[in-house]
Amino acid sequence: MTVSREVELAGHIIDSGTMGACFGIVMDMGGTFEVEAFDIGRHETDESYARLVVSADTEEQLQQIVHELHQNGANPADPSDATLEQAPEDRVVPHGFYSTTNHPTEVRYDGEWLPVDRIEMDCAVVVEPAGDAESDGTDGADGDGTDDETDADSDPTDADEDRPRAYTKVLNAIEAGDLVVTGEAGIRVHPPERPRDGGGAFGFMQGGVSAERPSETTIGNVADAIRETKADDGTVLAVPGPAVVHSGAREDLARLVREGYVDAISTGNGFAVHDIERDLYGTSLGMDTESLDHPRKGHKHHIYAISEVIRAGGIEAAVESGVVESGVMYECIEHDRPFVLAGSIRDDGPLPDTITDAIEAQNAIREQAHDADLVLMLSTLLHSVAVGNCLPSTTPTVCVDIDPATVTQLLDRGSAQAVGMVTDIGTFLPMLADKLLASP
Amino acid sequence: MTVSREVELAGHIIDSGTMGACFGIVMDMGGTFEVEAFDIGRHETDESYARLVVSADTEEQLQQIVHELHQNGANPADPSDATLEQAPEDRVVPHGFYSTTNHPTEVRYDGEWLPVDRIEMDCAVVVEPAGDAESDGTDGADGDGTDDETDADSDPTDADEDRPRAYTKVLNAIEAGDLVVTGEAGIRVHPPERPRDGGGAFGFMQGGVSAERPSETTIGNVADAIRETKADDGTVLAVPGPAVVHSGAREDLARLVREGYVDAISTGNGFAVHDIERDLYGTSLGMDTESLDHPRKGHKHHIYAISEVIRAGGIEAAVESGVVESGVMYECIEHDRPFVLAGSIRDDGPLPDTITDAIEAQNAIREQAHDADLVLMLSTLLHSVAVGNCLPSTTPTVCVDIDPATVTQLLDRGSAQAVGMVTDIGTFLPMLADKLLASP
Amino acid sequence: MTVSREVELAGHIIDSGTMGACFGIVMDMGGTFEVEAFDIGRHETDESYARLVVSADTEEQLQQIVHELHQNGANPADPSDATLEQAPEDRVVPHGFYSTTNHPTEVRYDGEWLPVDRIEMDCAVVVEPAGDAESDGTDGADGDGTDDETDADSDPTDADEDRPRAYTKVLNAIEAGDLVVTGEAGIRVHPPERPRDGGGAFGFMQGGVSAERPSETTIGNVADAIRETKADDGTVLAVPGPAVVHSGAREDLARLVREGYVDAISTGNGFAVHDIERDLYGTSLGMDTESLDHPRKGHKHHIYAISEVIRAGGIEAAVESGVVESGVMYECIEHDRPFVLAGSIRDDGPLPDTITDAIEAQNAIREQAHDADLVLMLSTLLHSVAVGNCLPSTTPTVCVDIDPATVTQLLDRGSAQAVGMVTDIGTFLPMLADKLLASP
Amino acid sequence: MTVSREVELAGHIIDSGTMGACFGIVMDMGGTFEVEAFDIGRHETDESYARLVVSADTEEQLQQIVHELHQNGANPADPSDATLEQAPEDRVVPHGFYSTTNHPTEVRYDGEWLPVDRIEMDCAVVVEPAGDAESDGTDGADGDGTDDETDADSDPTDADEDRPRAYTKVLNAIEAGDLVVTGEAGIRVHPPERPRDGGGAFGFMQGGVSAERPSETTIGNVADAIRETKADDGTVLAVPGPAVVHSGAREDLARLVREGYVDAISTGNGFAVHDIERDLYGTSLGMDTESLDHPRKGHKHHIYAISEVIRAGGIEAAVESGVVESGVMYECIEHDRPFVLAGSIRDDGPLPDTITDAIEAQNAIREQAHDADLVLMLSTLLHSVAVGNCLPSTTPTVCVDIDPATVTQLLDRGSAQAVGMVTDIGTFLPMLADKLLASP
Repeated sequence: MTVSREVELAGHIIDSGTMGACFGIVMDMGGTFEVEAFDIGRHETDESYARLVVSADTEEQLQQIVHELHQNGANPADPSDATLEQAPEDRVVPHGFYSTTNHPTEVRYDGEWLPVDRIEMDCAVVVEPAGDAESDGTDGADGDGTDDETDADSDPTDADEDRPRAYTKVLNAIEAGDLVVTGEAGIRVHPPERPRDGGGAFGFMQGGVSAERPSETTIGNVADAIRETKADDGTVLAVPGPAVVHSGAREDLARLVREGYVDAISTGNGFAVHDIERDLYGTSLGMDTESLDHPRKGHKHHIYAISEVIRAGGIEAAVESGVVESGVMYECIEHDRPFVLAGSIRDDGPLPDTITDAIEAQNAIREQAHDADLVLMLSTLLHSVAVGNCLPSTTPTVCVDIDPATVTQLLDRGSAQAVGMVTDIGTFLPMLADKLLASP
Repeated sequence: MTVSREVELAGHIIDSGTMGACFGIVMDMGGTFEVEAFDIGRHETDESYARLVVSADTEEQLQQIVHELHQNGANPADPSDATLEQAPEDRVVPHGFYSTTNHPTEVRYDGEWLPVDRIEMDCAVVVEPAGDAESDGTDGADGDGTDDETDADSDPTDADEDRPRAYTKVLNAIEAGDLVVTGEAGIRVHPPERPRDGGGAFGFMQGGVSAERPSETTIGNVADAIRETKADDGTVLAVPGPAVVHSGAREDLARLVREGYVDAISTGNGFAVHDIERDLYGTSLGMDTESLDHPRKGHKHHIYAISEVIRAGGIEAAVESGVVESGVMYECIEHDRPFVLAGSIRDDGPLPDTITDAIEAQNAIREQAHDADLVLMLSTLLHSVAVGNCLPSTTPTVCVDIDPATVTQLLDRGSAQAVGMVTDIGTFLPMLADKLLASP
Repeated sequence: MTVSREVELAGHIIDSGTMGACFGIVMDMGGTFEVEAFDIGRHETDESYARLVVSADTEEQLQQIVHELHQNGANPADPSDATLEQAPEDRVVPHGFYSTTNHPTEVRYDGEWLPVDRIEMDCAVVVEPAGDAESDGTDGADGDGTDDETDADSDPTDADEDRPRAYTKVLNAIEAGDLVVTGEAGIRVHPPERPRDGGGAFGFMQGGVSAERPSETTIGNVADAIRETKADDGTVLAVPGPAVVHSGAREDLARLVREGYVDAISTGNGFAVHDIERDLYGTSLGMDTESLDHPRKGHKHHIYAISEVIRAGGIEAAVESGVVESGVMYECIEHDRPFVLAGSIRDDGPLPDTITDAIEAQNAIREQAHDADLVLMLSTLLHSVAVGNCLPSTTPTVCVDIDPATVTQLLDRGSAQAVGMVTDIGTFLPMLADKLLASP
Repeated sequence: MTVSREVELAGHIIDSGTMGACFGIVMDMGGTFEVEAFDIGRHETDESYARLVVSADTEEQLQQIVHELHQNGANPADPSDATLEQAPEDRVVPHGFYSTTNHPTEVRYDGEWLPVDRIEMDCAVVVEPAGDAESDGTDGADGDGTDDETDADSDPTDADEDRPRAYTKVLNAIEAGDLVVTGEAGIRVHPPERPRDGGGAFGFMQGGVSAERPSETTIGNVADAIRETKADDGTVLAVPGPAVVHSGAREDLARLVREGYVDAISTGNGFAVHDIERDLYGTSLGMDTESLDHPRKGHKHHIYAISEVIRAGGIEAAVESGVVESGVMYECIEHDRPFVLAGSIRDDGPLPDTITDAIEAQNAIREQAHDADLVLMLSTLLHSVAVGNCLPSTTPTVCVDIDPATVTQLLDRGSAQAVGMVTDIGTFLPMLADKLLASP
């Protein structure tokens, strides 16, 4: 027995590799295909169109192939509405629920294509019919089960409240009764295409990882992307690890926060402790900050810094009472740059500001990720992965790490605009800050 | 002005490097010293003794030097009792509290040296006077503020309850009124010495990290150390990462759990999900497990596996209801091997069994670490660091990772018996299991 | 002014990515194109055909684009003969000579397409007209300026001597008067296409590098590929580094040589010295070979091993006189497996068998590479790159190294059938040998 | 039976770790010892003295222990003259020849301690009796069999010619009749001690490898060390790899050569080709140098650059004829900075200036290494190892690489003054050049 289905592709499907990828998928997964229609864009600015009939031996195999094609941008030729099923209880999704990619996605509801809000990978899609303005429905993917005042999407006075909506929810945010999309029908995914115009200030982000690019030039490109983001009133989110402090680049990041080139910080307890330890024990004991990194004293100062912040009642209190007088966390407090300190099982302390619950921390990170217009991942794998998990594939991202394996892992997420730099954060940040702050 | 203090060293202080290290510390930190007495062990089985007068320009500098010497095994020549101060409020330690190393430590109380129970690094030391059998006092370093039935130290019927005790507490477990050791006086630290007899089955653990050791031979040594630990009724704790599953070695670890060579598992949500995903989608869809690692399908199966366990109500329920039928988690359930799944901000799901609060997870890990007689760190940095943070320097540890930087970082904690292997976990575990299980 | 040229593509140009790549090249390099004809293969076994008109602003730019398209498999639509120019003097090529890829290539001479023999990258192509049977002409790419008896291509009695030939020559082998292909005209390149049938025993080699593949399964695949190569009377070339010895896997490689699964060895002085050092000082001093890797003794034994082989007059003499009694070099001598020891500036000694001149060594490696049907690169970057430089893109290659950067670099050469394994050579070789030798 | 020998140690033997190391060696190798005399330096500026009786079961074992102690600075208590034996033929050393370390060494001849000239590791020591002024004898370790005019040691008018001399020879430079030191007697080795005074501008070089040091500060330290070396009329040798060019730092290194901060270059064919390729194709084709690193064009330009230099007749000719107009090689020619291009089996071309024979290249590198007062190893493992092999342990060395494994391997050679930086050469060199050239 052979079962078949018709799928179609449209856009720059040849030079973006989409068509080749789809052909490969069918063959790799043991199916066959015929090309029914093919209309090639004859100029490089034209779009192309193709319609294939895909066949397989069993319905199950066919579904797997079609699912895979789907994730890569091939959509059923004759769309039906998406199938919706109610979640049977809290945190339990219906069997066969549709698990999202991080690409822009639409679901068909009542004959109409709804964009899926707050897209990120590995979520369920919940559809909220028109007029269904329950608070849980407006809660979106942040999964905290509460109304979030700062979330424009959930504004109860939103003019769209009488229109149906679709948005993502992570598994643990699913509530009994949520209408969850199942199966493959009625869903359109739009993987990013290679920009044809070079991409402007973000064009260099097509390059992937390379240890062999000229370092200074690439840092200049990152500076341009930050400038352009700020010129468009965008939000730059930095995700720094403790190596920023160890490598001596803390003051450079602090300058970027102070001067408004970095709008928000997503990091962990460890970074904040190192940052504050530098402040407390770099000056008060009269040591030369340059040689402070004396390994013998490390653990004592580290744990003392935590103790001082606990005693003060938190980072903000420590800044306001004059205990902490410099650094990245200091500048965040002084200039109202929001930060998230996510807890981890390797933390000492932790600081009172650290969110120790992983789900709560993820929700906080999710808000940061969805607000970000440019993300700088600075020498931390754990926090970069956590942020990256929540990013749509359309958010430009710069990953900097001295370990090529880390950079590769972070870039390997299908982002349309991402660049990895295998370099030393201790030289990267000073050069970046100089390029951004030196110009008048 | 010059201030001075007398310190003494005893033991195999020359060949263990202790004496050289102490001389170096004084010089590096800008102090001077004179050797007042020196009695060298003339045979390699004799101990040596040295008494130094250390001098510095200021009391503060001298204290720093003496603190550092102390951490390295040099103790004040004329000991006084340790200074104790009450914690002013919960989670706030007195100024100048003593922050522990991971080496065996004693504090002097009422003229008597008390061993510090549950030693681990970066903790405060709390002294509980004789007869002071408050429940909070018996709680030790586990920091959960509750009595722990399984903790022999806290047994209220313990004959020692009328004797004074000293034990560690992490910062966040400190309670108002705890008597916390401050300053440097009345504390003795015993850094590990190099064993002179070769160390038996654990002797190969003196070797540090080497990518250039014969791999098969070293795996044989690890097998011997496990066998000897089991022969002494010891507890083997494995700390596996997801790479164990990716690399195809899951069944080998499952065999070790089943056959009793691994007694407990400390890992995260990700490992458990991968392990269960292999079970659920390796067989049920009729795919060859060997080629299952199809990157295209990964995220869907991953999230589906989580969903199935949530639906079942947890791992144990999923095993008992027959949903999960093989693997490491399965064997843990079937053979009553305790496990801890610590949450992280990069988790999908998570599984209901995952401890999402970092402090709660650390406390669970701490119990595992203190119970362990041999620790196998298997291709996970995060969980290995978390376990390592709670280990005394006397617990034998094997670190296996393909990334030499990870191995170096894990070994760099002053453990007396630790060995790092830069190898492929996907070949290490099959060879280890064969060596342990092949013999009659 | 705009200049244009017509190019065509044929084959599995869509799913192999060729067409997408070519569209991308034109756009990246600032040109434009129109699709004049496009005939899509409607089934997955059909070939496709496309004809483009590519335009650019200057002839120079156009030539660059066309050159690049060319290297990727797009050929001029209306071919003319290749342009030939005489080399003006030894080692000097004509301006604008054509520099080869490592893909199968043809040049058009007298209206006929000649395959280019001994294809490898970065060479010139020399055409030898019919009847032009000079000895230098028959010398092919081996560049040693002498007739090579073992080279079937150069057999003077070859029936083809009255037909024109084309073959590669490295720059330093060019002789005055050689007819060298220049420009882009009359040249066809055939980049490898993805095999549609899975590739048989070599199919797993499509996988690229992955640290996340099941290790044991992949080793089984390598064993199958070796078995199949031997079943077809093919030649397996191993390229081992010193880590094979350090990691304790020397005897496993020796077994593969002895049993005929490895036909030839391409390595350096260092590997041979380590191999012989193990033999000489592993047994003669009565030490347990397992613990021999005592770092303190290393340099002395190393240099003594060299000295002993020099004294004996070379490796063969040392084997024959009974000085060397085991190991990889021993088995090569005993079983007539040819080996090349290429010298390097970091060598101690070197051994008398080491070819110290880099050009002479490259020529010897080139012969090995052209004879090989399967290449195993075993933990050496230098020698693997040297062999890889001489390989056509059609030779199956397995790269094993514990450093992912090394594996990536070695695979990044456009081989059609190559697989990289990030694993420990000290566990890989024992498992491989067991899989090959255990079966009856 | 027990055999014994008396050895003695003198100097800062405790805080330098020498004494501890020697005790450890005896125990590790299965011997026993007694301390017969021990005179401790009571202040940190005093030297200490110890005399041990070492015992073992067999003479062979004892010799091994004593050999090992020796390499670590313990010398026989009652020295006799060194044993000398004639080399039986060219390139063949007597059995049991003494193989050198890279530490300062003396041999006892006629009751007098002669310093061993041109010390480097893994060599034989040749003694030339007084008045024995044969030309081969004066040739030292450079092994080229010719008189070297620039070598002060070999000046025939040297007043020392009537005094006995000792110097190193590599194995392949040994000539029949050379008086070669054998055994262990009459040899004193002086491993470097930790400087007590902080080491001045070179003091930071005690630090070993650390990815966690402040990067900018460390680069400042390197600049200071270069400045101090130049202030003392010292020679700075740079050992750059191709990554210097790929990462965009070529012009920075060229500036250092031009301004006299780098006196000599030791590198390979690949670096020179990349450097010249940048010059030829960075400007002549009108491309922006910043984006030149276009992977698609790489191999063509690379091979064309080689071809152009061959056509010109070499690098100097290419500079003089105006073919090459910028870059590191250009500045070397223009400012008479000597360079060595050592060949390798992975070279394309090679350039006519490349020394293709490994032994000849080693001899050229040896001269550079012995002349150097400060060595900068810049992102090349092969050439750095080759240079490092020829360096005495007293030459200050800076190793820069982005791969920590490379840095560790390079530092692991017992150099007294060596520092490793895990950083990006593409940011290191611009920062270093700015620090050296910005100051007035």
